[in-house]
Amino acid sequence: MTDSHRPNDVRARIPRRKDNDHSHEAAEERRAFLGQRSGVSLDHVGRATIDPALTAGNIENYIGAAQVPIGVAGPLRVRGEHIEDEDVYVPLATTEGTLVASYNRGMRILSEAGGVKTTIVERYMQRAPVFHFNYARGARDFKAWLEANMDGVRTAAEASSSVVKLTYAVGPMLHVRFNFETGDAAGQNMSGKAGLAACQWIAANYPGGVRYTLSGAMDTDKKHSQLNVLHSRGARVVAEARIPDRVLRERVGVAAADLFKVRLNSFAGSVMAGSANNGMHAANALAALFIATGQDAANVAESHTAMTFVRLEEDEETGETVYYWSITLPALIVATFGGGTGLPTQSECLDLLGCRGKGKVGRFIEICAATVLAGEISLAGAVVAGDWVESHEKLGRNR
Amino acid sequence: MTDSHRPNDVRARIPRRKDNDHSHEAAEERRAFLGQRSGVSLDHVGRATIDPALTAGNIENYIGAAQVPIGVAGPLRVRGEHIEDEDVYVPLATTEGTLVASYNRGMRILSEAGGVKTTIVERYMQRAPVFHFNYARGARDFKAWLEANMDGVRTAAEASSSVVKLTYAVGPMLHVRFNFETGDAAGQNMSGKAGLAACQWIAANYPGGVRYTLSGAMDTDKKHSQLNVLHSRGARVVAEARIPDRVLRERVGVAAADLFKVRLNSFAGSVMAGSANNGMHAANALAALFIATGQDAANVAESHTAMTFVRLEEDEETGETVYYWSITLPALIVATFGGGTGLPTQSECLDLLGCRGKGKVGRFIEICAATVLAGEISLAGAVVAGDWVESHEKLGRNR
Amino acid sequence: MTDSHRPNDVRARIPRRKDNDHSHEAAEERRAFLGQRSGVSLDHVGRATIDPALTAGNIENYIGAAQVPIGVAGPLRVRGEHIEDEDVYVPLATTEGTLVASYNRGMRILSEAGGVKTTIVERYMQRAPVFHFNYARGARDFKAWLEANMDGVRTAAEASSSVVKLTYAVGPMLHVRFNFETGDAAGQNMSGKAGLAACQWIAANYPGGVRYTLSGAMDTDKKHSQLNVLHSRGARVVAEARIPDRVLRERVGVAAADLFKVRLNSFAGSVMAGSANNGMHAANALAALFIATGQDAANVAESHTAMTFVRLEEDEETGETVYYWSITLPALIVATFGGGTGLPTQSECLDLLGCRGKGKVGRFIEICAATVLAGEISLAGAVVAGDWVESHEKLGRNR
Amino acid sequence: MTDSHRPNDVRARIPRRKDNDHSHEAAEERRAFLGQRSGVSLDHVGRATIDPALTAGNIENYIGAAQVPIGVAGPLRVRGEHIEDEDVYVPLATTEGTLVASYNRGMRILSEAGGVKTTIVERYMQRAPVFHFNYARGARDFKAWLEANMDGVRTAAEASSSVVKLTYAVGPMLHVRFNFETGDAAGQNMSGKAGLAACQWIAANYPGGVRYTLSGAMDTDKKHSQLNVLHSRGARVVAEARIPDRVLRERVGVAAADLFKVRLNSFAGSVMAGSANNGMHAANALAALFIATGQDAANVAESHTAMTFVRLEEDEETGETVYYWSITLPALIVATFGGGTGLPTQSECLDLLGCRGKGKVGRFIEICAATVLAGEISLAGAVVAGDWVESHEKLGRNR
Repeated sequence: MTDSHRPNDVRARIPRRKDNDHSHEAAEERRAFLGQRSGVSLDHVGRATIDPALTAGNIENYIGAAQVPIGVAGPLRVRGEHIEDEDVYVPLATTEGTLVASYNRGMRILSEAGGVKTTIVERYMQRAPVFHFNYARGARDFKAWLEANMDGVRTAAEASSSVVKLTYAVGPMLHVRFNFETGDAAGQNMSGKAGLAACQWIAANYPGGVRYTLSGAMDTDKKHSQLNVLHSRGARVVAEARIPDRVLRERVGVAAADLFKVRLNSFAGSVMAGSANNGMHAANALAALFIATGQDAANVAESHTAMTFVRLEEDEETGETVYYWSITLPALIVATFGGGTGLPTQSECLDLLGCRGKGKVGRFIEICAATVLAGEISLAGAVVAGDWVESHEKLGRNR
Repeated sequence: MTDSHRPNDVRARIPRRKDNDHSHEAAEERRAFLGQRSGVSLDHVGRATIDPALTAGNIENYIGAAQVPIGVAGPLRVRGEHIEDEDVYVPLATTEGTLVASYNRGMRILSEAGGVKTTIVERYMQRAPVFHFNYARGARDFKAWLEANMDGVRTAAEASSSVVKLTYAVGPMLHVRFNFETGDAAGQNMSGKAGLAACQWIAANYPGGVRYTLSGAMDTDKKHSQLNVLHSRGARVVAEARIPDRVLRERVGVAAADLFKVRLNSFAGSVMAGSANNGMHAANALAALFIATGQDAANVAESHTAMTFVRLEEDEETGETVYYWSITLPALIVATFGGGTGLPTQSECLDLLGCRGKGKVGRFIEICAATVLAGEISLAGAVVAGDWVESHEKLGRNR
Repeated sequence: MTDSHRPNDVRARIPRRKDNDHSHEAAEERRAFLGQRSGVSLDHVGRATIDPALTAGNIENYIGAAQVPIGVAGPLRVRGEHIEDEDVYVPLATTEGTLVASYNRGMRILSEAGGVKTTIVERYMQRAPVFHFNYARGARDFKAWLEANMDGVRTAAEASSSVVKLTYAVGPMLHVRFNFETGDAAGQNMSGKAGLAACQWIAANYPGGVRYTLSGAMDTDKKHSQLNVLHSRGARVVAEARIPDRVLRERVGVAAADLFKVRLNSFAGSVMAGSANNGMHAANALAALFIATGQDAANVAESHTAMTFVRLEEDEETGETVYYWSITLPALIVATFGGGTGLPTQSECLDLLGCRGKGKVGRFIEICAATVLAGEISLAGAVVAGDWVESHEKLGRNR
Repeated sequence: MTDSHRPNDVRARIPRRKDNDHSHEAAEERRAFLGQRSGVSLDHVGRATIDPALTAGNIENYIGAAQVPIGVAGPLRVRGEHIEDEDVYVPLATTEGTLVASYNRGMRILSEAGGVKTTIVERYMQRAPVFHFNYARGARDFKAWLEANMDGVRTAAEASSSVVKLTYAVGPMLHVRFNFETGDAAGQNMSGKAGLAACQWIAANYPGGVRYTLSGAMDTDKKHSQLNVLHSRGARVVAEARIPDRVLRERVGVAAADLFKVRLNSFAGSVMAGSANNGMHAANALAALFIATGQDAANVAESHTAMTFVRLEEDEETGETVYYWSITLPALIVATFGGGTGLPTQSECLDLLGCRGKGKVGRFIEICAATVLAGEISLAGAVVAGDWVESHEKLGRNR
């Protein structure tokens, strides 16, 4: 602890200007203020090549930018519905050595196996208000009224007929989780507004009125939850591959049957641990993709949740052993416009994936899922083949 | 889907050079290759001001850097053990509008309330191998042997006497979770190596030998788990504040008693949802801090887990209502050297916090926890005061 | 281990008669066989006063009956919808000393507080088949078809229009959880038949056919699950009371504020433990009531799940502190006819509660919930007042 | 609701005599009182052949006994450590038709496969007090003191050196879970006393004293919890069998490979559901065994938790497919003396198993686990073979 950290007065505030002044001058003034107080130079932070004005909707008290290295992995053959049988090169922003190399290897294995099949099962975003009563009976009766009046709710929320709600009664409360379709935006804010409109309509129309809180915690925003596993938050997407034993032996040096056996063991560990993800490391792919493409990195909390399903099969023609490997991401929260997606480096990375702007979110979701699967296979292979610790040693030198 | 995404040959590989060539030339060559294939310019990505050579241990197939806007929030008064009664200004790298402003408001409330008390309860990192037997009896007997031979394990792992293990028997297996002290590094790799050394020693010394897999999934690396909630992964740290009713009314426009009531309701929702965090949005603070300071952003998966504990108290002298608010992060995984912490913008941000390099991780952990608490109070207040949707409208304009 | 346990031949089978011969002679013959092999007399087991023929649908290889002591607790004032403001005396079959006395005390407290308000929120029983495909896309498409064809499913299941389904996609599968209304029966078997009929209709009508397994584990039959917490299994019922501080001080010797404080602490422990019930000991009331009234005692597994919601309130007129205490049982599985409910002692106990036969299950559910709440208050009070260990000492003498 | 349920005065109390008067006269007097108030005869309840005086430690306000039919299943070949290669006949008290028959079939399959191997991994009982402080720092410092003073705790608890504790810090509290060895008793009361002694010693010796609550909910008494899965409550026991494909085909009409495939599917459903048991129906065996042998049936809540681990193997000699099937019960809570085990019918059933009295609990635990496994195989086979619904139809006629 240096003296420079000892403030003279506790209340010294950063911004002489408004916190949403995004001029170069405001940024410099803030850096100077921080430099003066802490004795620390923020040179590199200030050397951002992006125009501060572009960040107006993204940040307050702007002082510059973090530069996070990007590596590229690929090609990855994806056979989805929004991306049909294409090779992609995936930009990954990370500071973790070996990560890009590992995903690269997984992509090669998957591509040699014919690519990754991707399927989006459903997609929507939630707002989960809670309604308060004196007794449970009030909550129960309100639930019946709500079910009978969902058309009014949908109209008020200015949402399509696809607004769905699930209700959860506890004590004298009714928690309600609304599902909204949000197009290509991640949709938390859109859902927040639609949810508010829904609540206001309900409060105005429920006989005698009703008290509510806009969030009763069951949207589980920025949090993993079992509820997300069951009912999805953002996209529920599945990535699948059928990998011939031969490919695994050549690329990983491990037989399919051994990989399968180890997976069963890991399932058992995962169940005991009460893990949010019984696969390997979805968070690695997602964090790196999210930073590169301007997603909200906090959504790694929800998005990293995954269910792995595997089995050994026999190729009907050749009789060869084939390893069916799938990963289901029930809460992948991404967007291809809004938020940070329009910033300079971020939009370039979305462009590289062919995913910038409206109408592209399905494609992006499928690429995310396929990338996750590549990492699963690569790391699982490395753990079994025993080269895991060694590769970190060689490539991740500076830790 | 543009034609440019249709590859002529599936196997076209990115790197003519080695994937860990970190020269400007290699980066440019890769960008050119990607540009040729995709028709997309990576100008901004390539305009990084950091020297590619510095990223040698952080990335492979380097092509440039993502620029993520940084805003600063503060001052935040922290009263910890590694940071004693100091004000800090916290750099947050995010693209989510209103986030910095919201944390800023929470910091003001907390500072006016006398600051945040922070306490690190414990800290270590895990590796969790699994040992295989023909029958459960083999696993049970091995467990007894392991308990009697922990000294040998500790020596082999070149770890201090503080190596602790917990064992979990299931079917014919024994899952073992080793806790290692890892100094100021986050320690996943260090633990991986120590774990491997431990396993190798065990396999060499267990009468008749023993088969193992280096990870049986119970380290729950890059994954939330209930096991982490119970036994910590990384740091278990608590941030606490006692906020006078008066401050809440002035700054948030909400009475302590109302905030408390809403929190109880949220706890009920959280329990039903099976949520990894019964607070508000720890992930937001952590993702933004992690990106700014060169942490592994994938660790948001584990680190966002939290338990909130609150109660209404009465000030003994004045009789005023005081809101005790604490948040416990059981799995905060951070480092102050190694990984991305040494990169230019990242090390500046660590400097700003007085947290760069060895001996600083305790200080950094405490600042992380205090920042999280600031966000809890600000968002909780906003939800109750009803200005939540509105503030997103005003500040987060571009979504 | 006595010699008598050493069989001469491994395959010696019990029944010379059919396993569903429920005559006195068959029972005696089996007891004789067991006596011969084990040297053990089954006199008391054989002294059952019930007619074996009555057990024809309840048991195979009948040898007699267990006699489980019944104590009675009450009166308990219940203010429900199927039981309006009545006092009941509750028969509890248990061998755990102090249990009846403890529930008795809780009932007195609740009755003095004006009784227990009970509300059934919803009730149905599940069957959860899983449908198999080669790829997730098959599961996704099937899900859409199923949603469009629920009328056919309902007709096939010979079930009312209230059949509801929730679907859960994972890998190449679609898990479907059907909710059926089952009248006064617990309904597992009824649901099994309706589920089979539904599946058969689906398989016959889905273009190209579809493979399924009748249970994919998501009915979570005889198992606690978070899914039950969210979507109920059996009845979701809430019991509530508002207990004046004065009553708690007089009867338990503890202030409402202290009980509340301890409950908050317990919530925190419960969250860390990942507990199926953040209250005290619902299982005690339910197991004792289930045995006394011929319920399936295995359903304690699901039924013991509970969410406690409490708060301190102020009586609007007197200003006195009032403790609002509720417990929500999301998966209470009971019946008032069928199964063991018609057996002699069991039907008498149902009669004592006014709950025998069709049309009575709502009343029984409400009594179960009210009884559970009585136990919560009594045990919580005892723990706080510190007389817990002592009362076990005095009453539960033989352990 | 009949008039007879309408009480004349709300406060009419049952016992003119003391609630722990266990004479025939007291029981009759209570039955008469209930008959008078409710118009219901309790004839069969009163016809218990057991002497009320024997129930003195088991019940209060005794009025008679429930008669629960007992069927017997077996022989079941168990190859454990406390029961070496023996056949047992298992008494099951239940009212659920087909249950005994189903377990009987499973026992036959297992016995033909060479029997069930059983292994007790560990066994102890918990008490989990919580210690309160003003700040987390107090809890953290207390934790260090506690670790240094465990010898004093052990002496105070009059427990062997095997008392182990795990600590869980949250907010300003330290939750402590003590493990006690409790011999052949289930041990909840014994642990309660030892826990109290431990707490009293701690409060007396911790510098400055410390406030505590005897249970902070982390014992998770009578409740399933993830904590129990990890750290056992009662016994952690594993039952295993290797079943030749041939036996499965003959007895169940299903191939091992098909059973295995269905199990993988069920694991996926189980993970999504957040189920306490990824097997089939352990609760059925345990509830029936518990009632027959005088266990505390409420412990089904904890005891039904289970992890299934399976795999297909190849017989080394014959090359035949063998199905390895194991179930791990991490929280089996049973006793062979005390509680209800000494009552007439209950002790006869324990005798039948060779498990009555001290020194027998290991044997009983192993039989419980083996019986559970028998039910898993039988029901899983029935589900796959499709005869599940049909068998309920035929045998369980009266529902």
